[in-house]
Amino acid sequence: KPNFDPRDHQHLRYNPLRDSWVLVSAHRMKRPWKGQVEKPSEDSVPRHDPNNPLCPASTRANGEVNPEYDSTFLFENDFPALQPDAPDPGSDHHPLFRTKAARGVCKVMCFHPWSDVTLPLMQPEEICKVIDKWAELIEELGPTYPWVQIFENKGAMMGCSNPHPHCQVWASSFLPNEPALAERCQRAYLQKHGEPMLLEYARMEAQAQERVVVENEHWLVVVPYWATWPFQTLLLPRRHILRLPDLTSQERNSLASIMKRLLTKYDNLFEVSFPYSMGWHGAPTGHYLKEDMNHWQLHAHYYPPLLRSATVRKFMVGYEMLAQEQRDLTPEQAAERLKAISEEHYKNRVK
Amino acid sequence: KPNFDPRDHQHLRYNPLRDSWVLVSAHRMKRPWKGQVEKPSEDSVPRHDPNNPLCPASTRANGEVNPEYDSTFLFENDFPALQPDAPDPGSDHHPLFRTKAARGVCKVMCFHPWSDVTLPLMQPEEICKVIDKWAELIEELGPTYPWVQIFENKGAMMGCSNPHPHCQVWASSFLPNEPALAERCQRAYLQKHGEPMLLEYARMEAQAQERVVVENEHWLVVVPYWATWPFQTLLLPRRHILRLPDLTSQERNSLASIMKRLLTKYDNLFEVSFPYSMGWHGAPTGHYLKEDMNHWQLHAHYYPPLLRSATVRKFMVGYEMLAQEQRDLTPEQAAERLKAISEEHYKNRVK
Ligand SMILES: O=P(O)(O)O[C@H]1O[C@H](CO)[C@@H](O)[C@H](O)[C@H]1O
Ligand SMILES: O=P(O)(O)O[C@H]1O[C@H](CO)[C@@H](O)[C@H](O)[C@H]1O
Repeated sequence: KPNFDPRDHQHLRYNPLRDSWVLVSAHRMKRPWKGQVEKPSEDSVPRHDPNNPLCPASTRANGEVNPEYDSTFLFENDFPALQPDAPDPGSDHHPLFRTKAARGVCKVMCFHPWSDVTLPLMQPEEICKVIDKWAELIEELGPTYPWVQIFENKGAMMGCSNPHPHCQVWASSFLPNEPALAERCQRAYLQKHGEPMLLEYARMEAQAQERVVVENEHWLVVVPYWATWPFQTLLLPRRHILRLPDLTSQERNSLASIMKRLLTKYDNLFEVSFPYSMGWHGAPTGHYLKEDMNHWQLHAHYYPPLLRSATVRKFMVGYEMLAQEQRDLTPEQAAERLKAISEEHYKNRVK
Repeated sequence: KPNFDPRDHQHLRYNPLRDSWVLVSAHRMKRPWKGQVEKPSEDSVPRHDPNNPLCPASTRANGEVNPEYDSTFLFENDFPALQPDAPDPGSDHHPLFRTKAARGVCKVMCFHPWSDVTLPLMQPEEICKVIDKWAELIEELGPTYPWVQIFENKGAMMGCSNPHPHCQVWASSFLPNEPALAERCQRAYLQKHGEPMLLEYARMEAQAQERVVVENEHWLVVVPYWATWPFQTLLLPRRHILRLPDLTSQERNSLASIMKRLLTKYDNLFEVSFPYSMGWHGAPTGHYLKEDMNHWQLHAHYYPPLLRSATVRKFMVGYEMLAQEQRDLTPEQAAERLKAISEEHYKNRVK
């Protein structure tokens, strides 16, 4: 019998943040792809489009006119999934028909006045302003809401309906499923092993280097051992940090720098503006602000869908929806490819 | 303050099969959609294509020639994610780097010799042959493997790379995440409430009627109270049944009939061959065959991605990936629309 080789032999890996498993079947990359091919992402977005509701001086759906902003710009989502004053559905009447109240706010934050830039094409100082605003949002909404989800959907493939660089913030009166899982898993880990899970994890990954994509004095980006999306990454601080507002200004600068490096590599991988959903998970807020949350470690997830090229994605369907997530290359292979890629953006290269 | 109305006021609903919550924000359907529009699905598949490896008499990737089959046809997947003899990765060395062995088999089953039909366009007798083969597969693979996942990815939007009507079967040496969750939740429910969860659920839905899409003597299709995909449905038997092979021939005939009715409605909803992933969840097999599994009830999930039209889908991205699944119309609204739709397939209608 041959020796086990993760690149040739399917196996399961455990995701300790979600208490679940992923099937790694790296030999599947050998199969030819005859399925759906995506439209290549638009490469010619105009810098300013007066009809784009996210641009400076544009009129939005509710009739409001945007200021002539020259940095970040924050406003209430005009079609929010969460509103602050929804009435309570009343109490549960049966264990199979349970309802709970949901209240919250949804905001949109533009990263830059121009529509034709993305984070990796922005200056580090400009990215710093985005990070500062993220921290401010947690400070502003945290006292009211136990969870403030900051996330960016980038690219049409990820359901993003506007090419202007922006992210969203949905704050809720409840702890959603994913952070509730991360809360439970991190709490149990500290209890059992005596160290915050992701602090230990970052330390071990920094030492092993095998899955590290980029790193600097304060931060580390790895393709996690349990990654499900082909080029998924996890962005981790090296020191113990609960929430975005706790970052020092040095750490913010160095975060801007590592984000720019990671996102440049992503864009360079298939020479396309790389689609993804990303988001921040820090310790819950609201009443949790008064509790001991030392089991938490701040982190960001990047979930990009592309697998083979700028137009061939991974489909999380069928087996993945009904049974278990499955990936077609090992996390180590993905990390190796990303690590080898240039940190100079392909759009800035002299051709 | 207004009274609570699920169509206007966001709320959470509990999914008792997955022990998690979904955010229902039905007022979001009011927002305009300016995002990605899918290619309309191909409407002109040739009945027979000698270069399609799924067609009768075609040569497959491994050089084998398909028989001139005239009903269903089963073969081993030429690019399997699970192989029967993968070596063991060895034991865990650290709680953050856990690996487990995975063994199994992957098969493909063609539903029909023609490429230009789908289940709703097949005769009930032909659908019965598919159901019989599904039951046979569980009987054949069940003794060896604790989980046999039968699933169909339909449509390019669902990662299906071949238009010929077919499904897949992945049997594994482990219980994957989703069935492991369903196992835990159903077991706890029977213990606590004294009745199998989905048997009680079917009874209550049949009585309430509000979410029933189609029903007959033996089966019921509902948009579950906790549905996450816009037009997701759950197919349930009325009597307590653990696994597909337990179905009587009467129940198989009536299953063929209700599947044809449901899938015809799906196709008629947007007058397009409706994409979805579907799959069967019956009681686990392998060593579980000898245990008391009465907490289980056989069921099938249909997960279709379309939301607004034949070309506008729901994106489960950003907030959904990082925080919690969110839907844009209530399950009751979805059921009402599906219920109102004709059971005569739009392709068979005299124009
Ligand atoms: O049908 P295929 O080509 O094997 O592949 C499709 O279904 C598989 C199982 O759901 C997924 O893992 C793949 O991502 C998808 O493209
Ligand atoms: O509000 P947007 O950006 O138009 O909408 C997008 O992101 C939301 C949050 O991830 C999702 O619920 C939508 O399905 C998606 O299209």
